[in-house]
Amino acid sequence: MNFENIPYKIYLDENEIPNTWYNVRADMKNKPAPLLNPGTLKPLTFEEMQPIFCDELIRQELDNDTAQIPIPEEVQNFYRMYRPSPLVHAVFLEKALDTPAHIFYKFEGNNTSGSHKLNSAIAQAYYAKAQGLKGVTTETGAGQWGTALSMACSYFGLDCKVYMVKVSYEQKPFRREVMRTYGANVTPSPSMDTAIGRKINEEFPGTTGSLGCAISEAVEAAVSTPGYRYELGSVLNQVLLHQSIIGMETKTACDKYGIKPDIIIGCAGGGSNLGGLISPFMGEKLRGEADYRIIAVEPASCPSFTRGKFVYDFADTGKVCPMAKMYTLGHGFIPSANHAGGLRYHGMSPVLSQLYADGYMEAISVEQTAVFEAATQFARVEGILPAPESSHAIRAAINEALKCKETGEEKTIIFGLTGTGYFDLKAYEAYNNGTMVDYIPTDEDLAKGFAGIPNI
Amino acid sequence: MNFENIPYKIYLDENEIPNTWYNVRADMKNKPAPLLNPGTLKPLTFEEMQPIFCDELIRQELDNDTAQIPIPEEVQNFYRMYRPSPLVHAVFLEKALDTPAHIFYKFEGNNTSGSHKLNSAIAQAYYAKAQGLKGVTTETGAGQWGTALSMACSYFGLDCKVYMVKVSYEQKPFRREVMRTYGANVTPSPSMDTAIGRKINEEFPGTTGSLGCAISEAVEAAVSTPGYRYELGSVLNQVLLHQSIIGMETKTACDKYGIKPDIIIGCAGGGSNLGGLISPFMGEKLRGEADYRIIAVEPASCPSFTRGKFVYDFADTGKVCPMAKMYTLGHGFIPSANHAGGLRYHGMSPVLSQLYADGYMEAISVEQTAVFEAATQFARVEGILPAPESSHAIRAAINEALKCKETGEEKTIIFGLTGTGYFDLKAYEAYNNGTMVDYIPTDEDLAKGFAGIPNI
Repeated sequence: MNFENIPYKIYLDENEIPNTWYNVRADMKNKPAPLLNPGTLKPLTFEEMQPIFCDELIRQELDNDTAQIPIPEEVQNFYRMYRPSPLVHAVFLEKALDTPAHIFYKFEGNNTSGSHKLNSAIAQAYYAKAQGLKGVTTETGAGQWGTALSMACSYFGLDCKVYMVKVSYEQKPFRREVMRTYGANVTPSPSMDTAIGRKINEEFPGTTGSLGCAISEAVEAAVSTPGYRYELGSVLNQVLLHQSIIGMETKTACDKYGIKPDIIIGCAGGGSNLGGLISPFMGEKLRGEADYRIIAVEPASCPSFTRGKFVYDFADTGKVCPMAKMYTLGHGFIPSANHAGGLRYHGMSPVLSQLYADGYMEAISVEQTAVFEAATQFARVEGILPAPESSHAIRAAINEALKCKETGEEKTIIFGLTGTGYFDLKAYEAYNNGTMVDYIPTDEDLAKGFAGIPNI
Repeated sequence: MNFENIPYKIYLDENEIPNTWYNVRADMKNKPAPLLNPGTLKPLTFEEMQPIFCDELIRQELDNDTAQIPIPEEVQNFYRMYRPSPLVHAVFLEKALDTPAHIFYKFEGNNTSGSHKLNSAIAQAYYAKAQGLKGVTTETGAGQWGTALSMACSYFGLDCKVYMVKVSYEQKPFRREVMRTYGANVTPSPSMDTAIGRKINEEFPGTTGSLGCAISEAVEAAVSTPGYRYELGSVLNQVLLHQSIIGMETKTACDKYGIKPDIIIGCAGGGSNLGGLISPFMGEKLRGEADYRIIAVEPASCPSFTRGKFVYDFADTGKVCPMAKMYTLGHGFIPSANHAGGLRYHGMSPVLSQLYADGYMEAISVEQTAVFEAATQFARVEGILPAPESSHAIRAAINEALKCKETGEEKTIIFGLTGTGYFDLKAYEAYNNGTMVDYIPTDEDLAKGFAGIPNI
């Protein structure tokens, strides 16, 4: 392979943006386990999901067979606003590491939401609009997903109601203002708008909220408001489907320039980025057409793959959402307060969980000071200040490249750079000041998270 | 012209990035007036500038004759990290405005510094490194230029000492932490490091600083530290030269796709972005080869072109820097505290000042609520949250496009979108809350700024 002929940044032409999403479930022998109704513990039906989700999104959620699903033209038009995203040859990083490895990264941060979340947000907003809905609800922690959905709803003229964890609403006002600029209604959670919010405010006066509570409020608001549905930015099968655009573009760029990755690396929280990036490569692997090492990287402080159990669990702390079979730390698990950035979900995409259980991918966990060390090194040579989440993948990519330096192997590594760290500078400040600490939960800590999981 | 065949985002190939900067002074009949030594009131010589600036940058500052100046290979390599920047066809904005006008914008915000400032920062850092210097100093307000210079210095392994206005250092810590992540030494100004800082701290205990004071400290630190020089991000001829990369790429993209702008619009503070964007177009105009309407847009609260005088003035409040002949509100002028974002410099690039005086360009001023209205409209349809500075150009472009709607004219408009607003969300919050106010200085206010200008 002649790496000299590859541009530093590979931008596909606009007509090379894929016009279908790839549904990796179609090529899985062991399909992901279905979502269960938490009341009946039976698989959720289309009709049971209808009050919560848009019809077409339910179809996508349940479709384990169709490999290529057309991207609606209106979504394709929006994609052209910020896609194709570049596949960057990390020549400056390679030089700094003095490694024979060839490193590429797919950069999803060049849009105002600052991450890959927009890929699914625009699809979900489109299907809500196509169904004639008036608006959608969602929850957000620091605000990455809420920002993406606000942008998407603004484009289609949909109302967007975001329940934002109160402590973030008050202490991290910047993404809140981006959402408001895009016309979203942002409510600190727990609020007095919903029954569950009022209940929690009454039981815990002065609480600053949690993601679990915000999810419960958003779902309640959706099912109780005519013309509204709830939308979610990770974990679900539909989200991985939409995020396959990342991997499809990456694969197209690789094929165009003859790049054949040996190792593909992504950070893993709920799995939306990793699942999207690896989809077409995993498809080849599942069909026996090619082999790749695929590595999920998760925080040591929230290690669902590496220390969780592969069981049915509630998707939310408040137990109002469906149950999913996934690697989980237990719906009662909350990562330590000093954990920076996202990747704090207790569970993992059921698709990725099944693939991991079946041995198609590896998983590792890394500690956050090592992550920020990699982030800083990367920022200084590649010019992009990475999101803390993405920096987990950077850490692993650098580790693999350094192994190549030891062995002399010229491996080709691709990793997903999901977003930028512009709204995470409090974490960078802690790292710069030397006050950032690592946290690895003890087995006792983890055991607490499992309280209340039914034994199924 | 067939606009259907133009991609939504025009990315030049990497080998189409210009390898020379264009020096518009070479084509000016009336050259910009030279910088004066504030002591002798005589033109500054190369030798007088040497303690402050790098040698090669002084040569560029003084060179009014060479039209094409080669971009050093190391700078070209760095440019490939984030360039070419896209020339975007604003189809979503055109549709929202229902205008027959064709609108394009050159987007310079897709890099971690968040603006075009990096184009000159990397050149200035390179020449410092090439001269064997140890480091550079500079000042920064909110931090856009300081961030860019920190990134550039990190790349070349140079020390970077940034004097940051104390109130920004304390209240706007995010860009400070970006700079620290890139290894810069960031000092709140006024500090106790410099004689001028100690003097100001003594005279005004508890002062939160000003840009003028930070400039004075940075210059003092540069001239008093062996192996250091001072670098500046706007106003100077050398900066406009480096920023011509914006216009050169824009012109190349226009020529490639047969786009012929009728109107070119840029925001104007010190002039670095506007000067860069218009350079090659202005060159054609100066040589009589083509005609374009060129419009500078400045804030009504800091109206140097539209209400300033074209005279020699001090470049800094502290009067330690050279004097420049420029449109100026007086070195004592400080814009109202409610003025959001940059574009707050009291003067204007001497090159642009001369071109404006000679009738080659127009200037208008706009009020900030109208600017944020345009910013919000743009963000919602084009997906990019614009910097307040850039939004001045958006306001003017929308106004021109609406005029076309009235007249039915199919004019082609290009404007410079210099950066993103991710670090300006306090201003967006004020706009979202309806608490943003406009401020137009009275003639009496402006008269105060002129106190102390020598009558030359």
